[in-house]
Amino acid sequence: MVQGKFDVIHGWAAMNPGTKVEPWTYKPRPIGPNDIEIEIQYSGICGSDLHIIKGEWHGTSYPAIVGHEIVGRVVTKGEKVSEFSEGDVVGVGAQVYACLQDDCGQCNRGLDPHCPSTVYTYNSKYADGEQSQGGYASAIRVDANYVFKIPDAMVKDHLEYAAPLMCAGVTTFAPMIRKGVKKGDKVGIVGIGGLGHLAIQYASALGAEVYTFSHSPYKKQECLELGASHFINTSNAEEVESAHHKLDYLFVTSKGKADEYNDFISLMNIGGTIVLLALPEGKIGIGAGEVIFTGVSITGSLIGGIDILKQTLEFSAKHNIRPIIERYPMEKINDALEHMNNGKARYRIVLDNLASRN
Amino acid sequence: MVQGKFDVIHGWAAMNPGTKVEPWTYKPRPIGPNDIEIEIQYSGICGSDLHIIKGEWHGTSYPAIVGHEIVGRVVTKGEKVSEFSEGDVVGVGAQVYACLQDDCGQCNRGLDPHCPSTVYTYNSKYADGEQSQGGYASAIRVDANYVFKIPDAMVKDHLEYAAPLMCAGVTTFAPMIRKGVKKGDKVGIVGIGGLGHLAIQYASALGAEVYTFSHSPYKKQECLELGASHFINTSNAEEVESAHHKLDYLFVTSKGKADEYNDFISLMNIGGTIVLLALPEGKIGIGAGEVIFTGVSITGSLIGGIDILKQTLEFSAKHNIRPIIERYPMEKINDALEHMNNGKARYRIVLDNLASRN
Repeated sequence: MVQGKFDVIHGWAAMNPGTKVEPWTYKPRPIGPNDIEIEIQYSGICGSDLHIIKGEWHGTSYPAIVGHEIVGRVVTKGEKVSEFSEGDVVGVGAQVYACLQDDCGQCNRGLDPHCPSTVYTYNSKYADGEQSQGGYASAIRVDANYVFKIPDAMVKDHLEYAAPLMCAGVTTFAPMIRKGVKKGDKVGIVGIGGLGHLAIQYASALGAEVYTFSHSPYKKQECLELGASHFINTSNAEEVESAHHKLDYLFVTSKGKADEYNDFISLMNIGGTIVLLALPEGKIGIGAGEVIFTGVSITGSLIGGIDILKQTLEFSAKHNIRPIIERYPMEKINDALEHMNNGKARYRIVLDNLASRN
Repeated sequence: MVQGKFDVIHGWAAMNPGTKVEPWTYKPRPIGPNDIEIEIQYSGICGSDLHIIKGEWHGTSYPAIVGHEIVGRVVTKGEKVSEFSEGDVVGVGAQVYACLQDDCGQCNRGLDPHCPSTVYTYNSKYADGEQSQGGYASAIRVDANYVFKIPDAMVKDHLEYAAPLMCAGVTTFAPMIRKGVKKGDKVGIVGIGGLGHLAIQYASALGAEVYTFSHSPYKKQECLELGASHFINTSNAEEVESAHHKLDYLFVTSKGKADEYNDFISLMNIGGTIVLLALPEGKIGIGAGEVIFTGVSITGSLIGGIDILKQTLEFSAKHNIRPIIERYPMEKINDALEHMNNGKARYRIVLDNLASRN
């Protein structure tokens, strides 16, 4: 068993439901033969982090260090790890373990985020009962299968942009790849935020004609600059109607209201696909007649498996896709969480561990 | 312009909202160069027929002769029709016209039931404003593109079984073909009725392992005989739970309750597909979380285009798939409609014009 660099990991943990975190340390799990120890440089803030800090999703096991958009350097590796070297710049996303066995009906289809043995990056339990702890911290130890090399182009050019790709990036790119978005398709993006502003870039880079939908007209210019061809102000009924029956795909990245989902069907071409990426409260109401007479599919998507995460990083590097971010030193994390909680982040926040140390 | 056999078509028309029809005649449209005149032998009763007779769907234009599961013989053909000969035994389904042009975004993908120029078999308007009239009648004149040869095996072996395939058959088979149901897939059928009892046979013939769901335990034996491997009594929570997370596809053929659709997601394997074929009242409620965490798709399907209708007939003949029917002479049509309206049809009713004439 190799010894790691971090006997103790210093992090910022939610100690009880609220929006604040505080300094907290934990003793990391031993570094198994297939594990990697990473010194964390950047950690993005995801909407899920806040839900867990607040205890809004099925219960949070406090203390909880959240954060699953992690970028850092390999400092130690288990004896069987051959793919990585010390010093490699790597990322970790929202998942840190799946069985990856051939007889797993999910892993054998590239759907490892749905593996019954999945361990998420935080607030999740390893088979031995230990709780996973996330990226608002000095370091993390994880299975090498869930460690991803950051492409050289990103390492050289503002590495902090890579962090949000580990969750927001793959979450928006994965369903486009799986559903087959291609050149010439008409793709709608509802909600221009942390996910939406990346979705525009991915759809555009895939060659789609991108329609953006937002009730914030001041976002129009930005949408067009990110690659959209159309901006629809959803407060303007005429503009919305002009997009009726147009879309092959619609990616819903904002929570919206449960009762507006049926209207989304009106935007779709026959046989089109609506993909939910955000969680509205309550059940969404769908007219069976609308579904039958349009053949539209409504589905959802959850992060992305190992293969898709690798593709996300490569595709993003190749097409120079990067999030728009705001940077906070790690020690200002509570300011960052408050900013995020107030819905003011434009569009993704990245916490910087180096800034705190300098 | 060729002259037809029928100067006047005798039919049974709904004259106003209700459940009764009465004798009524209309002067048929001229036989255009691409049209065919068919003397009707058998006409199936579809649930849609009753909705239109009752005026339940967006308004019915009375008098209305319904019926879109038509089988008969070609008696006259337009001068440009080469594919058919007088005496051919043919069928007509729920659609009698689409533009079928290469520049139609629906027709050029085999989605002609969604063509903007679609004329349905009854209660629909031709471009010239004339109303289409359906199969509860002595004859019908339609575009040859929407006339289908009945396979010889069916002509020889109780032709009346072919009638329900023209709508119920293609409605259940089409989504299985489009969505790619294949050997070894686990396929659920909710609702064992006019559509469901055919869906079992198609899924089984495609090699799927078929799960049937019904709150009528007395249908179990029949389901197994039709090809199902499992019968789940939906009133028994334990039985339902035994099917959780199993299905690759679920075809919902009964109206059910709008609030039970979310439960259907529990039956699905990750990434499975639920296809609605029936219209529950009100909007169906779907939990976005369930959709995102399972990747299940919810979609619907509407009859089938020309290619799929041909496939339906060929596949049915090859695999000896036939509906379970009750026969009524055409003159007893009001008894048949009452039987159907009371939910007592097992499982499809076929009206017989020959029986009336003999």
